[in-house]
This record gives sequence, structure tokens and C-alpha cells, in this order.
Amino acid sequence: MNIFHGNILFSKNSRELAVYEDSYLVADHGKVEGIYAVLPEQYQGAEITDYGSDVIIPAFSDLHVHASQYVERGLGMDMLLSDWLNQYTFPQESRFADMNYARPIYDAFIDDMIRHGTFHACIFATIHREASSYLIRRMEERGLYGFVGKVNMNTGAPDYLRETVEESLLETERFLDEFKDNKTAKPIITPRFAPTCSEDLMKGLGTLSKKYHAGLQTHLVESRWEAEEAMRRFPGYQCDTEIYERAGLMDNGPVVGAHFIFPSEADIRILNRHGGFAVHCPDATTNIIAGIMGVSALQSQDVRVSLGTDVGGGHSLGLYTQIARSVQLSKLKWFYEPEQNKPIAFPHAFYLATKAGGSVFGNVGSLEKGYVFNALVIDGMADENIPLTPAQTVERFCYIGTTDNIKARYLNGRLIG
Amino acid sequence: MNIFHGNILFSKNSRELAVYEDSYLVADHGKVEGIYAVLPEQYQGAEITDYGSDVIIPAFSDLHVHASQYVERGLGMDMLLSDWLNQYTFPQESRFADMNYARPIYDAFIDDMIRHGTFHACIFATIHREASSYLIRRMEERGLYGFVGKVNMNTGAPDYLRETVEESLLETERFLDEFKDNKTAKPIITPRFAPTCSEDLMKGLGTLSKKYHAGLQTHLVESRWEAEEAMRRFPGYQCDTEIYERAGLMDNGPVVGAHFIFPSEADIRILNRHGGFAVHCPDATTNIIAGIMGVSALQSQDVRVSLGTDVGGGHSLGLYTQIARSVQLSKLKWFYEPEQNKPIAFPHAFYLATKAGGSVFGNVGSLEKGYVFNALVIDGMADENIPLTPAQTVERFCYIGTTDNIKARYLNGRLIG
Repeated sequence: MNIFHGNILFSKNSRELAVYEDSYLVADHGKVEGIYAVLPEQYQGAEITDYGSDVIIPAFSDLHVHASQYVERGLGMDMLLSDWLNQYTFPQESRFADMNYARPIYDAFIDDMIRHGTFHACIFATIHREASSYLIRRMEERGLYGFVGKVNMNTGAPDYLRETVEESLLETERFLDEFKDNKTAKPIITPRFAPTCSEDLMKGLGTLSKKYHAGLQTHLVESRWEAEEAMRRFPGYQCDTEIYERAGLMDNGPVVGAHFIFPSEADIRILNRHGGFAVHCPDATTNIIAGIMGVSALQSQDVRVSLGTDVGGGHSLGLYTQIARSVQLSKLKWFYEPEQNKPIAFPHAFYLATKAGGSVFGNVGSLEKGYVFNALVIDGMADENIPLTPAQTVERFCYIGTTDNIKARYLNGRLIG
Repeated sequence: MNIFHGNILFSKNSRELAVYEDSYLVADHGKVEGIYAVLPEQYQGAEITDYGSDVIIPAFSDLHVHASQYVERGLGMDMLLSDWLNQYTFPQESRFADMNYARPIYDAFIDDMIRHGTFHACIFATIHREASSYLIRRMEERGLYGFVGKVNMNTGAPDYLRETVEESLLETERFLDEFKDNKTAKPIITPRFAPTCSEDLMKGLGTLSKKYHAGLQTHLVESRWEAEEAMRRFPGYQCDTEIYERAGLMDNGPVVGAHFIFPSEADIRILNRHGGFAVHCPDATTNIIAGIMGVSALQSQDVRVSLGTDVGGGHSLGLYTQIARSVQLSKLKWFYEPEQNKPIAFPHAFYLATKAGGSVFGNVGSLEKGYVFNALVIDGMADENIPLTPAQTVERFCYIGTTDNIKARYLNGRLIG
């Protein structure tokens, strides 16, 4: 059992923060047992870890990140998407065929993700099964929560990154099978997006999805180009999302669609039918000029919106920076497209990064009773003599904080840094 | 004399970076004497400060920042402008009547600006002369380059922040007179913006401008509201900028107009006639929903564009973050308003923050021969085993760096941290 004293903050819902000032949080067997203004008698005398005026918050959930692009973050960010893919991303991803290249990068990625307070993530690896296996194995060993995918691509990509349908299905099945019993870091089927996967590959992946009860992550109506290209390559389909539905990829586990900026009504209807997540990646969609997700419009249509860093299209591995950025972009969205796109408030953005995104992994992303105690302690945000409320501390952290302001990290109730 | 070894990077112009890898920079009496691939014979045997593969760049010039809003940065950032002004900014600014409140905040602001690598800045204080004097005195004592203004407001603001015309002129004159002989941190006339200054106040300030050879800083066509309100309050004027021109405020020193998002052709013509600067403040204009400056469109019309943080409307005191953000926002500008608004490249954005902005202060913002050696040493951006070029180091620093990546700071040739 662990008892913590401090200010405790998490999301009640998309509109409201729960804030417990000067309170006690009791965690038992790695799960939150309760929060108390006065420590109940049964706990008197127990050891207390005192965080004073620091703020204890849930660890973050990054629902879209490319581990293989970690070494590209913050480079070539003024390029156009096609140049960035061809000059940086594709040549770089191809190097993950070499395990001596892959291992140190995936280790650095995991270390840095932890440093940034993200303990739950939906991760794209590359097409290479061996490197993807290394990544998911390391995630599981470290106790991190994730859905990790070996990427599928059999068309619309350079030769050196293209698989045959048979190879792609065979390697994906080996990956799904090898890690099917993982406890926290689980395999997920990961067609890069419709422009790089043929219909027969999609259908084959659908069969694997059913056999292994595996979910789906992909880029969904990511850009105007992607939505149009999907329709060009899949004639007879009414929208991008239907490609996955008809392949049987949306019935057997979580569905995570990155970006979702240009959905038709059919895309929204299909995503909602399967309880899928739409992942808002503010910096990435700015860097690659894809536009701005209509967060409030989507939520008014009951879409489950969450947040992602999309490293390396996005530059920062800190999901907290994307909390700030999603508030900012919602203001620009409103400026340019005022209908149905009201700006979102800070509690809403914080919710996307914690409770909303966390729900894909199970009971993480909150500090309510029964949730896993995956938590961060935030400090150092106040100027001398000008105290901040807990909500102000967390807001300022999301705008100008760094990993140095994460004073402690708890994963499954254990202090890990 | 100082000799430095390392990679040296600065802007040639808005299109090109000058990069000297593995070179020597010689500074004499605080100014750059030259850069050499091989150290000339006359310097052989002299002591060399070796920065290895680190990158030496010019210190930054922040052309728009409110020192008095330092303690508000990153708070209330989801509010609308009027709420933010009334709930945070105005009540907070009023406290600068109290020197015990003002002193530690201005000291912390200066320390933090230095920490972020900004040694040259155009700074708004508040209406309070005594606190403004403290700020400019401390800037001068520390050898920082600046234009610092006591703010003028006699209308359109809460009672507790409103001066009479007489008070405003009297206090401004005392401020201009007291610091007229400053060497690096100079006084500048600072009407907050047209909605808070009457015509007679503007004209009185124009007289002081002439008498003291003082320049002008203000918010210029900052938002649609501001541009319209200016025209409402100044009937018979053709545009916001003309208010300052007709008051005689644009003839006697630098002219620095913050934001400049909605200029008419007349605004542009008048600003250019006086060689004025338009200051792009990407995060601030996002936070307050003012829209996006059309950087490339303005530059094609020969407007002198520079960069500002606009703390506290902007949240970060790191001008380098605004380099990244200006590239990002130029992409969104292009997405929403493709005509004449091509995205800007990283070298262009870096130029805005260094050589372009620096020119208002004199020979700072470059490392060409004759420039003051106000410089930063950037390191720690490369991942293990994946080397970066100097330009990549600086780009990544602007996207994901922190003050920890500024390994050394030189002001007037002297190491200051």
C-alpha cells in the first residue's frame, strides 16, 4: 500500500476537472483505493509520501505515435509531406530491417516516452517484424500499456518498403501469435493507410483480426489527398472508413483512426458503430498541412476523440504539449470555420489526453477508485511568491513545462523515476 | 580577444543560412572579427574555447513582449481575449503601482529572458513610471539591448489603469528624459493601442517623440476588433497606422508594430514609408484568436517582418519556439488562405528571429564581421549515434529544445551563463 499527500487532479469528464487540494491518495496493489481530505483512521501511522503543493495527475495516453520516426522528430519540418516522406521517413524506416539500427532507437524512444510522462500508447513500428517484436517485447517488459503494430504496406510505397500480400500476412500473423498473451503491451493490426494496402491485403488482415481478436490502428481520412486516394484505389466503397469495416477489421478489438480531419457522414457513422477512436494530433497536422480536426464538432456527433503526438510528423513526444496545442488549434479552427467548431477549454483538452485516450487501454488515465495508479507528480511551475492553483499548475505545465517539471513517475503503483 | 571553435551558424538573408562547420570565430572587444576554417597565423598559440560539435548562433531578438505579463504566461489560455484581459491582465498590471510587487517580477523576467537566449527585446511595461524605470535601469545595468516603454492609456481601459492626458504625458516625458543617455536599453514611446489613447494624447506623444528622438511601439491592426475600434475612435483617419503617422510618432526612431494581421494597403504603405517593423507573434495570435499574419505576403510587399513572443498573450519566453511556430502557422495560413501566402522555410523563420529583428537594435543578430558577439551555444539535440548537421541541430532546438540546450551565453563578448 502507498499513501501520497499533495494536490490531486484528474478529469471527471470532458467539461470538468476533479481537484482535491491538500489531500491523501491511497493506492493498493497498484490501484487507486481512494482520495481523502483527512486520512481515515485505518491508515493512520502508515508511511506517507508527501508531495506538498505539487500536483498528482494521471499519466498520459498517446494514441498515435511512430516509434520508428523518433530520430526524425523536429527535422525537415518545413517540407511538404511528399518530400518529408521521401527524403526522411521512408529511407529511415527502411533501416529497421537492421536490428542493430532498430534496437537503440526503440530503447531511446521508450525511455523518452516515459520521461515525457506517457505510459500508454498506440504505436506504429515499421513493416519489419523482427524490429516490431523487439519494440513490443520491451514495452511489455517495462510494464507499459500499449497497442503496438507491425505496419502493412504492399503498394503505393517505395520498392524497399513494400511487402507482398503473402509476406505481409505471414509476418503479421507471426507477430500477432507471438504476443497474443501479452498483459499490457498488445499487438494491433496496422495497415499504414488505404493508399498503401490493396483490397486483398485488407481482407487477409480482416481474417487475422478475427482469428486473433486483434484491433486496428491506421491513418483515417488524414488529409484531403489520403481520402481521395483511398476512394480512387477502392472503387465501390463509400468512404475511407468503410474499407476497414468491409474487411472485417473493426469488430475484434479497439479501432484507432489517426487524424480523422475530413470525415464524411459515412466515416463518422461507421467509426461510431464500432466505438472507434479518432486521434487528434495537433502539431503533426499543422506540420504536414493537413488542416485542423474539428474536435467540438466531432464530439457533438459522439465521436470518441483522443490525442496523439504523431512523432515524427509531430515533433514533440510530450503529449502535454498537445493538450495546449489542441486548445490553440481549436481557436484557429473557430476563426476560420466558425460553424460548429467552438474552441475547446483546457479541461476538455486535458480529458482527451488522459481519461478519453486512456479508456482504450482499460482502467488508466484517471485517479478514480479502481484505476491503475499510473501517475505523474508535477512541480516547479509557480513563480516565486505567486502561488498557482492545481489547475493553473497543470495548465502552465502543458504550455511551457518540460520533462524537468515531472518530479516523479508512478507506473502500476511503483516509482519509476 | 576570444577565440571559439565549433560549428557557426547565422542568417545570410531571409533565404539562406551561413554555416561554418568545424571553424574558428575570433571576437575582439566584444565584436566579431572573423570566422576561419583554419586559424590564421597571428592567432596561433592564443587560448581557444572549444565547443566541439556544438553550434554557435546569434542571440535572439524578441520584438514584442510584455514584461508585466510575465507572471501570467501559460494561464487562462483557453479564455477569449476580453475575459483574459479583464480577469488576468488588467488587474495584474494594476499591481505594478506597488514597487514591492514590480521589482521581483521584472528581475525574474530579465533572468528568464536571458536564460531563453534573448538579449535584445522591445518591451512593454505598464502605465506606472516608477516600475517602468526600474525595468529599463535593470536592462541597462545587465548590458541587455532593448527598447522599453512606459505604457500610455487614457481611455478604453478600467478606471484603475487609466491616466489623464496630462499625467500620461508628464510621466512619459520624465521617463524619456531620465533614460535618454542609456547605451543599450533605450526608452520608446508606447501607446498601448489606438483604442486606449485619445487623439490629444497621441499628438502630445508625437511632440515628445520629436523632442527626445524617441521611437514608437504599439499594437498595430492586431485583430479585426482593434482595427475597427481604431477607426471608430479616430474618424477621418484612413487606417490604424495613419493615427501614429499623423501624430508625428513615426519619424524619430524605430517603429515597431506588433501583430499587423489585418493591414490595409494604406497601413502597409505608411509602415514602409517609415521603415517600420511588423512583429509576428505566432502563439499569441493563436491564443487570442486574432488570426495568422501573412508573413510571405507582407515580405513580398517589402514589409520588415520580425518575431515576438508577446508574453503573456504568448505563453513562452523562448523566441526559438516562435521560429518553429511561425513555420507551422505559415502552413496553416497557406491551407486556409492559399493566395500569396506560401509557407515559409526554416531559414526564413530563423532570420526573422535573429538578423531581421536584431537590426532594430544595431549590429546584433548576426555573426558577420563587425556584429556584437551576442551569441548562444546550442548542444544536446542529437540522439546517440545519429549525428545532426548544424542546421538540423538548430531546427530541432527550435522545435523541441529547452533552455537546457543553451550550453553557453555570450553578451557583448562576455560569458554570462
